[in-house]
Amino acid sequence: MKKEHIDQINAAVEAVKKRKEINHFYFVACGGSMALFKPVEFIMDCECEIPATVYTANEFIHRSPKALNENSVVISCSMRGETPETVKATKIAREKGALTISMSHVVGSSLWNACEYPIHYDWLEEEDMTNHNHTILYSLIFNILNAISPSDKYARACRAVERMDAVFKANKEKYKEAAKEFGSKYKKEEIIYTMASGGSSGPAYSFAICILMEMQWINSSFIHAGEYFHGPFEITDSDVPFIIVKGIDQTRPLDERAHAFCKKFSDKIVLIDAADFDMKDIDEDLKGYFASIVVGVVLREYANALAEFRGHPLTVRRYMWKMEY
Amino acid sequence: MKKEHIDQINAAVEAVKKRKEINHFYFVACGGSMALFKPVEFIMDCECEIPATVYTANEFIHRSPKALNENSVVISCSMRGETPETVKATKIAREKGALTISMSHVVGSSLWNACEYPIHYDWLEEEDMTNHNHTILYSLIFNILNAISPSDKYARACRAVERMDAVFKANKEKYKEAAKEFGSKYKKEEIIYTMASGGSSGPAYSFAICILMEMQWINSSFIHAGEYFHGPFEITDSDVPFIIVKGIDQTRPLDERAHAFCKKFSDKIVLIDAADFDMKDIDEDLKGYFASIVVGVVLREYANALAEFRGHPLTVRRYMWKMEY
Repeated sequence: MKKEHIDQINAAVEAVKKRKEINHFYFVACGGSMALFKPVEFIMDCECEIPATVYTANEFIHRSPKALNENSVVISCSMRGETPETVKATKIAREKGALTISMSHVVGSSLWNACEYPIHYDWLEEEDMTNHNHTILYSLIFNILNAISPSDKYARACRAVERMDAVFKANKEKYKEAAKEFGSKYKKEEIIYTMASGGSSGPAYSFAICILMEMQWINSSFIHAGEYFHGPFEITDSDVPFIIVKGIDQTRPLDERAHAFCKKFSDKIVLIDAADFDMKDIDEDLKGYFASIVVGVVLREYANALAEFRGHPLTVRRYMWKMEY
Repeated sequence: MKKEHIDQINAAVEAVKKRKEINHFYFVACGGSMALFKPVEFIMDCECEIPATVYTANEFIHRSPKALNENSVVISCSMRGETPETVKATKIAREKGALTISMSHVVGSSLWNACEYPIHYDWLEEEDMTNHNHTILYSLIFNILNAISPSDKYARACRAVERMDAVFKANKEKYKEAAKEFGSKYKKEEIIYTMASGGSSGPAYSFAICILMEMQWINSSFIHAGEYFHGPFEITDSDVPFIIVKGIDQTRPLDERAHAFCKKFSDKIVLIDAADFDMKDIDEDLKGYFASIVVGVVLREYANALAEFRGHPLTVRRYMWKMEY
């Protein structure tokens, strides 16, 4: 991890330490950046008694949570740092006395200037993925957990972040062919569902709304594997495609159950099983949490392949950035 | 409200009062019953500093929130009271010392017996909707809020529940023709999106997964109106149908923005605007919260009409109740 990022994370964590009684962690962003927070919301809920909640930024602004005050920590994120709702939410939180930490790829962006503790992250153009959004966020969160309740586990997790570049690359390579097969086989589908639970809900939701709907104009919906049996499973049929993620965290039994049922009735299942991931030397008790962000990296390969086979680049939009909305 | 229900709610509220320091309200259920909790999660977040979180039951079981303990209140719900995940989640919560309150239509069901404070609710076969699930839940929640932090507003809300039967019926009648028009016009659609924010996220999610996917085998997805502009809006096209709910609670600006954009590019918008509801003599400062449950009642009319025009009764299933899963 670059010194710049370490320093920014350390400054934020020191500020968290200084807040004596934290009442709530709010994770605020939109779309893909919001999805990024789902795995850490999961981690916080499993590891920490302080409530942690993800909000889409405009809901956060207008809902105006009653508990938001000087004891709160608000962590927001926007790639370009110019998402108006996220910038405004951060400003409101800061006005209310909350500690504001924001992640952005662009130093000096509106979000960067709105918060007290900005943290930069690299993006696709950087070969080394150690400083990408998910790893920077994991470093921040495990450092915060270690500050609140010091433990060997969190200290090891902070160090594990440094080993994730190799893990990401090994799995990008490992899934290259499977991704191509997916692109070739599913290029003409008009609807593709995604399904996951636990920490992997984030990347599966992101794939549905950012890749399929936004970047490919393919109908989609993220289905929580636990909810599948309480409505959505009735849509299952031989010709209905599902991308199913089986995580290796605490909620894996939900994914296994959904997959076991779905494969009986759909002939179009794309399975991403984190148990097959090459997790290298990530400690056993941390693999579940870290696998959730590997899911996102692997799914990005699937997105690239789908775009290639469909002749529809991931950068094409019909509305976004082209008009006021 | 029947004496039976009042007594059950009072017993639960007295038990909540006796817990000195409540650290978290957990709302636990599956599918439609889980969706029922979304408006009250919203109300709690706006009105109360104690965190309140909705979980699908199996995620709650396996995630096992760290904060779940004897200071927690777990409110669960299952129509028949036999949803295995919800029963198990309630048992686990009770074992951990949490106060358990469960709502069920069936007295003596497994859920009824699993919890400490069971509350019965009537269902469709009962003409008087005062004791249906949403009104019973609202009565419980506003009584709890009034116990935690007594106020005229919450006392008025508790009384307002008694006037909701008339509100429901007025709006069922008001939307009868619009519902038929919807059924007739949209009966051949293969995908229909639903969109809402705030408290109305619950009924809009429920319509997507329980009515469209489960009971009509129509592809669907609930899109949060705040998330629409961060991915899903790129799927908008002249022939893509959206049911858009405009609530009258704090997040209405999100719905208005999504509707204003969507109607420019889709010729198939079904708008349910709560500003048009006949809210009778519900107090101005409570209308927003209560309108969210009217949305559910109005959408049920749309469901009935759609089923009628499609010749596909809402009771038909291909998997549910027919096999092990």
